[in-house]
Amino acid sequence: MTMKLKHKHSRKAGLPPGTLVHIGEKKSETVTISVYEYGEGQFQERTVSKPDEIAMTGEPTVRWVDVGGIHKMEVLESFGKMFSLHPLLLEDIANTDQRPKLDDYGSYGYVVLKMLYEGDREGDINVEQVSLVFGENFLLSFQENGGDVFQGVKERLRNGKGRLRHAGADYLLYALMDSIVDRYFVILETLGERIEALQDLCVRSPGPETLRDIHGLKRQLLFLRRSVWPLRDVMNNLSRSDGQFLQGSTKVFFRDVYDHIIQIGDTIETLREMVSSMMEVYLSSVSYRLNGVMKVLTIITTIFMPLSFIASIYGMNFEHMPELKSPWGYPAVLGVMAATGLAMLYFFKQKKWL
Amino acid sequence: MTMKLKHKHSRKAGLPPGTLVHIGEKKSETVTISVYEYGEGQFQERTVSKPDEIAMTGEPTVRWVDVGGIHKMEVLESFGKMFSLHPLLLEDIANTDQRPKLDDYGSYGYVVLKMLYEGDREGDINVEQVSLVFGENFLLSFQENGGDVFQGVKERLRNGKGRLRHAGADYLLYALMDSIVDRYFVILETLGERIEALQDLCVRSPGPETLRDIHGLKRQLLFLRRSVWPLRDVMNNLSRSDGQFLQGSTKVFFRDVYDHIIQIGDTIETLREMVSSMMEVYLSSVSYRLNGVMKVLTIITTIFMPLSFIASIYGMNFEHMPELKSPWGYPAVLGVMAATGLAMLYFFKQKKWL
Amino acid sequence: MTMKLKHKHSRKAGLPPGTLVHIGEKKSETVTISVYEYGEGQFQERTVSKPDEIAMTGEPTVRWVDVGGIHKMEVLESFGKMFSLHPLLLEDIANTDQRPKLDDYGSYGYVVLKMLYEGDREGDINVEQVSLVFGENFLLSFQENGGDVFQGVKERLRNGKGRLRHAGADYLLYALMDSIVDRYFVILETLGERIEALQDLCVRSPGPETLRDIHGLKRQLLFLRRSVWPLRDVMNNLSRSDGQFLQGSTKVFFRDVYDHIIQIGDTIETLREMVSSMMEVYLSSVSYRLNGVMKVLTIITTIFMPLSFIASIYGMNFEHMPELKSPWGYPAVLGVMAATGLAMLYFFKQKKWL
Amino acid sequence: MTMKLKHKHSRKAGLPPGTLVHIGEKKSETVTISVYEYGEGQFQERTVSKPDEIAMTGEPTVRWVDVGGIHKMEVLESFGKMFSLHPLLLEDIANTDQRPKLDDYGSYGYVVLKMLYEGDREGDINVEQVSLVFGENFLLSFQENGGDVFQGVKERLRNGKGRLRHAGADYLLYALMDSIVDRYFVILETLGERIEALQDLCVRSPGPETLRDIHGLKRQLLFLRRSVWPLRDVMNNLSRSDGQFLQGSTKVFFRDVYDHIIQIGDTIETLREMVSSMMEVYLSSVSYRLNGVMKVLTIITTIFMPLSFIASIYGMNFEHMPELKSPWGYPAVLGVMAATGLAMLYFFKQKKWL
Amino acid sequence: MTMKLKHKHSRKAGLPPGTLVHIGEKKSETVTISVYEYGEGQFQERTVSKPDEIAMTGEPTVRWVDVGGIHKMEVLESFGKMFSLHPLLLEDIANTDQRPKLDDYGSYGYVVLKMLYEGDREGDINVEQVSLVFGENFLLSFQENGGDVFQGVKERLRNGKGRLRHAGADYLLYALMDSIVDRYFVILETLGERIEALQDLCVRSPGPETLRDIHGLKRQLLFLRRSVWPLRDVMNNLSRSDGQFLQGSTKVFFRDVYDHIIQIGDTIETLREMVSSMMEVYLSSVSYRLNGVMKVLTIITTIFMPLSFIASIYGMNFEHMPELKSPWGYPAVLGVMAATGLAMLYFFKQKKWL
Repeated sequence: MTMKLKHKHSRKAGLPPGTLVHIGEKKSETVTISVYEYGEGQFQERTVSKPDEIAMTGEPTVRWVDVGGIHKMEVLESFGKMFSLHPLLLEDIANTDQRPKLDDYGSYGYVVLKMLYEGDREGDINVEQVSLVFGENFLLSFQENGGDVFQGVKERLRNGKGRLRHAGADYLLYALMDSIVDRYFVILETLGERIEALQDLCVRSPGPETLRDIHGLKRQLLFLRRSVWPLRDVMNNLSRSDGQFLQGSTKVFFRDVYDHIIQIGDTIETLREMVSSMMEVYLSSVSYRLNGVMKVLTIITTIFMPLSFIASIYGMNFEHMPELKSPWGYPAVLGVMAATGLAMLYFFKQKKWL
Repeated sequence: MTMKLKHKHSRKAGLPPGTLVHIGEKKSETVTISVYEYGEGQFQERTVSKPDEIAMTGEPTVRWVDVGGIHKMEVLESFGKMFSLHPLLLEDIANTDQRPKLDDYGSYGYVVLKMLYEGDREGDINVEQVSLVFGENFLLSFQENGGDVFQGVKERLRNGKGRLRHAGADYLLYALMDSIVDRYFVILETLGERIEALQDLCVRSPGPETLRDIHGLKRQLLFLRRSVWPLRDVMNNLSRSDGQFLQGSTKVFFRDVYDHIIQIGDTIETLREMVSSMMEVYLSSVSYRLNGVMKVLTIITTIFMPLSFIASIYGMNFEHMPELKSPWGYPAVLGVMAATGLAMLYFFKQKKWL
Repeated sequence: MTMKLKHKHSRKAGLPPGTLVHIGEKKSETVTISVYEYGEGQFQERTVSKPDEIAMTGEPTVRWVDVGGIHKMEVLESFGKMFSLHPLLLEDIANTDQRPKLDDYGSYGYVVLKMLYEGDREGDINVEQVSLVFGENFLLSFQENGGDVFQGVKERLRNGKGRLRHAGADYLLYALMDSIVDRYFVILETLGERIEALQDLCVRSPGPETLRDIHGLKRQLLFLRRSVWPLRDVMNNLSRSDGQFLQGSTKVFFRDVYDHIIQIGDTIETLREMVSSMMEVYLSSVSYRLNGVMKVLTIITTIFMPLSFIASIYGMNFEHMPELKSPWGYPAVLGVMAATGLAMLYFFKQKKWL
Repeated sequence: MTMKLKHKHSRKAGLPPGTLVHIGEKKSETVTISVYEYGEGQFQERTVSKPDEIAMTGEPTVRWVDVGGIHKMEVLESFGKMFSLHPLLLEDIANTDQRPKLDDYGSYGYVVLKMLYEGDREGDINVEQVSLVFGENFLLSFQENGGDVFQGVKERLRNGKGRLRHAGADYLLYALMDSIVDRYFVILETLGERIEALQDLCVRSPGPETLRDIHGLKRQLLFLRRSVWPLRDVMNNLSRSDGQFLQGSTKVFFRDVYDHIIQIGDTIETLREMVSSMMEVYLSSVSYRLNGVMKVLTIITTIFMPLSFIASIYGMNFEHMPELKSPWGYPAVLGVMAATGLAMLYFFKQKKWL
Repeated sequence: MTMKLKHKHSRKAGLPPGTLVHIGEKKSETVTISVYEYGEGQFQERTVSKPDEIAMTGEPTVRWVDVGGIHKMEVLESFGKMFSLHPLLLEDIANTDQRPKLDDYGSYGYVVLKMLYEGDREGDINVEQVSLVFGENFLLSFQENGGDVFQGVKERLRNGKGRLRHAGADYLLYALMDSIVDRYFVILETLGERIEALQDLCVRSPGPETLRDIHGLKRQLLFLRRSVWPLRDVMNNLSRSDGQFLQGSTKVFFRDVYDHIIQIGDTIETLREMVSSMMEVYLSSVSYRLNGVMKVLTIITTIFMPLSFIASIYGMNFEHMPELKSPWGYPAVLGVMAATGLAMLYFFKQKKWL
């Protein structure tokens, strides 16, 4: 989904609550389901085509099911039955218009957040909704289409490096959220560079398309803030809650992500103020140019009007104009004109209009 | 009521509190009263013409009385007696100028909220006040005129599909509020489309009526925020309260509506910022056009003033002007004029004024 | 007091605290004191000329003393002695520059609020301070001059209709405050109408006096907000407090007034935003007119400058100008001029400048 | 200190904390120390030249030491030893750049606040820091130079009128703070008058110095807010605290000063909004004048350009121009010119440009 | 690091959390490690080249290790092992993009803050991150390069003056933070002077580079606020916490630094409002100049257009123009022109356009 304001809820208006309708653009045709089962000394990776094939065999410490594609309602419903999820939760997964939040359903928790990545066209920021359902020893992740945002985490699981394989589902939850939040810094960096480029343009050659770009940036930042800021509460709750699945030692990691979110929020505010300033610079620059145009107009008018007036006096057809008869009349008038013109130029230099 | 600011309280100033005066425009002539009685295995639907005819017979799990038209004071007073409602509550039902709120009257609760739908003229948003009184096993709903906002809920009751018939009055309360809130998304979608259309207009051909439209939108969004935002507290209280009529399993549904309200509030803020930006674009667009006009003016003046001055020199009537006698004078002067004009055009190209 | 910012505290600077100085404009010459004593089956109304004449005889359920005129310090001091009021409270009554507040003095409470009514000149809003001291079974009300704001309440007391005579001093407190708050709706309605009238004027014929009117409205709304908004806390405290004089059944009435205050505050904010928008419309309207003037200027200049230039060419006095000899020269030049002019008019039509 | 932003902390950067350096302008050469000892039946007033001379003899109920001049570090250190004050407190007294605050040091309290008075030049507001240290039965007051702000309190002490001599050090604290806060009203009144005078000027004859005055006022109000607003918390804490030196009966007086601070804060906000409006009026007034100038320019151009064009046509030297031969040609052309000019004037009247 | 917005997190995106990557510009080549061990009667100062050489011998009351240079990851890891620090803490030290914060890790605390100092070019403000880890009897300080900000503290330690050597690690923590915060006042003073210089420039000769400077200042103030404001919470927590390393007597010192932070925040807000006002002055000044230019244009046009028109009338070639024959025609016309010109000059004087 590129950054447009779409409210597809209207498609749902009138249906009973809990009715599963995929709200959002269909992004991939197929649904991919990957299962990762791991514990202290074990690791297994499978790809299945239907939820039913996730045979609940073995006794892994953690089972992570990563689902790409949420438009097939029957798949969601299968998951709902298998993990006994609340109908409203399934509805939230299918509706990609959610704002980031954390819901506590007693025996499992639910986190929605937004994954951001740069689009194909320059300046585009694409957004994808990621839903995470986490419980005692399992974690379900739902992406709109199976992107590569979790590649790093999967790689670490395969290699068995770091803390990941030795820790529980709560640490996996942290690792996934951290990898999404780290992406935000990349997006902000890109935006910062575009803002600096635009600032130069504003001073050098402001035009209507500059204005359009400024407002585009403004809107993107507004959108970003909406996507990121609610995460603050989510991370704050995760780093403080005494839920049954969250171990004390993991909380310090959630607090670290919380700090990142605060930092991202600060940067977004700074960028927003920079964009507002840019608007001022733009308007001031346009107005400065108008001033320049006016000065040229004034100078031309001021220099040539008196000169033309002098010429028009001697263009009058009176019979008794003694100057016209004099042989020095013509050069004298030309001299007066030159003197007048030079005096005015000097005057403008004084006024700093040239 | 179309979106105007009307304060009809003045009609009441001076009367003792609790005096029933219908504040608001009378919308329908007749009062329609529909009664729905249902339980696990039963469902009955009746239409009565007077409150007295709601015979309190049978033992339904839930009794829902849907009233269309609140201008007949004697009808409201009959309800007041029958269900022993507080006089201030009746006054609130009759006054359609309420802001959304939840009042707890001990043995029953009272919710006011605003129903929004598009009006006949394009761009109009009509608003209607809906009052909901809910108790142990009954729910009274009062609409200004018996619209079709609750048709979906009634249909579900008749079909017996979904959870509705098996749940209590609190779930019915949720279903009714949810159907009203779902409408808000439709309204926001329409507004979003109008804003995008107006944004194009702002850049292409801004005029005074564009400005009027922008301010109309601004006002509508302001009005919307006032109608929607207080609902946040209402839903929050409903999803947290430990009232006697609200079952724990229903609270999660109210929380879902709460999330919707937050989302709607976010969207309204976004639209408001977009409208503010649009104002800036409008002003900047007007100013850019002024700039363009000024440039044309300057170019014309700058090109023709010196040329006219040259012509006026040779229009002087001095006797001793040797150039006038020369056969090459005329073409030479024309050549000088052409050269001057072309030099200026080149200068403007350089300055990017053309 | 018409709406001016007057700080007459300076008259007091340096005096010991508790010194009674009437701060405010003297409004009426005489002080009127009306006493209303009533209970379940009784009602008595008297007018006395001195506080001492309020003989504390009989055993009424409630004794209400309504005082009009607060500029006679000896009268206030008599009341202070008779009801053993705190010196600071008397000082607050005499100082009409108070902001609305509720003070709890243990054995009695003190409420200050502002009564608003339209002045004689159109657009004027007058403000009068009302002080209410309420205890176990008495209520003292102090107005700046004995206006008719409490006429409705007095009438209801005389008629014995409604709940008033059967209830305690706390209900009387509610009735008085409610009658004052109801007036605010009337004021807001008037302001709303003036704003709509001014909005039309802004678009049709903006002038400097329009600007002055806008700023007048802005200031009045600012003043209104200051007068009304602190009442929110007052009503909130009254509807929640567990003071000894406030019965549980009266609290629901204070909550109703609280809702009204919130609604009034909302409306004031809406009106303020409308006035801000109006400022924008005004500026934009002025700027649009400037644009219109510029276009006319440009068109005239652009059409006549080239034409005059052509004419001035053939006004030159060169001896060898073959065109001048030709019999078709004159009509040909006129034709060229007409063609040039028409071409330009067509160009402007294209540019939508006409 | 006149109202400039001075940060003299830099003089201290690098020194160990608690090093006494007088930060602020030296205002008086000498240090004056006045001692007031009083109780129920007694009052004694002395002036000493060194802190050591405050012999702790007798048993007064309250001992107040008023110190004028804080630049002599050895004097402050003597006080520090005599009353065993914390080094940081002495540092705060010597540093006149403090913001108002209340510090609780266990066996004594410390209040800093700002005394404001009008300066010699019109529009100047001078500020002086006042430090108050109060304990069981003593109060130390430190002013930058021994001004007359406490004259009223001293007079009341001498006369023995009012509550002052019968009450403790906490009431003296109240009396001193009240006399300082009362001065704020005088300053606000002056500012209000200057704002109204400037508003007139803005409409009548706006110039660059008007703008400078507006920004001067803006800055003064900003400064005032910073000086006054933190006092709110100070007074709030004093009126609520259960410190050992504050008696319950004095708290109601602190609450009264608290109300005054709130009122002053309200007025400052109102004045700030008025100054912001003034800025708008200024800009609009300048822009309105630009409009007026443009109209004159347009009218002159529009009237004379066509007339000059007509004249230039008949200034052409074609041989075959039949009009030139006609005896009625000249008056006819003059007539056409007059008609054209009048038609245009009529057109401008229609457009309301004249 | 000069004041640019750099988000180097992207370098880290994808790596497992806790991976040490130095984020920030490398500032010094070598890492300097100084060890200070002191107690009541002892003081020892050493410089080591590797963390391992900090032999944990002797029993000093306090051991302070000051590290300059944080880009060598192996050094940080050595410290991590020696003092058993959490991996996330090491990551925070290495990442110089932190916002000020206080983290409690149980057996030790962690404070990050920003050191500010003026750069080489005028107007530059450099920022350096300082990390402080403090425990029972040790304190580790990490600077980006071993600057001289702590010279004053080190000198006091060597001299044994003041409280420093007799107090614990918590007082050392205070002393270091106080020396950093004192620097902020110097920076603010410099900024204040630059703002005042720019304000003059805005009125005297506003140009595009003035605008750039204003926005530069705006951004620096924004940056400063971000660097300073979060310290408020840090100091507030330190002055209130009941951690095991903080003694009650030290808290009053942290409260003093807290007051300084509040004061700095106030000053930043004041400077920000001054910069905003400056923007208004700039725009108004530019607009005022445009007005001046327009007036000159109008006056020239208004004076010479009618005069040229008169001249062009008598330049017409009609045969029957009696004025042309008259000997007084020429001087009469010149007289009329002079009279017209003077009348207009008088008119402009009236209108105050000259």
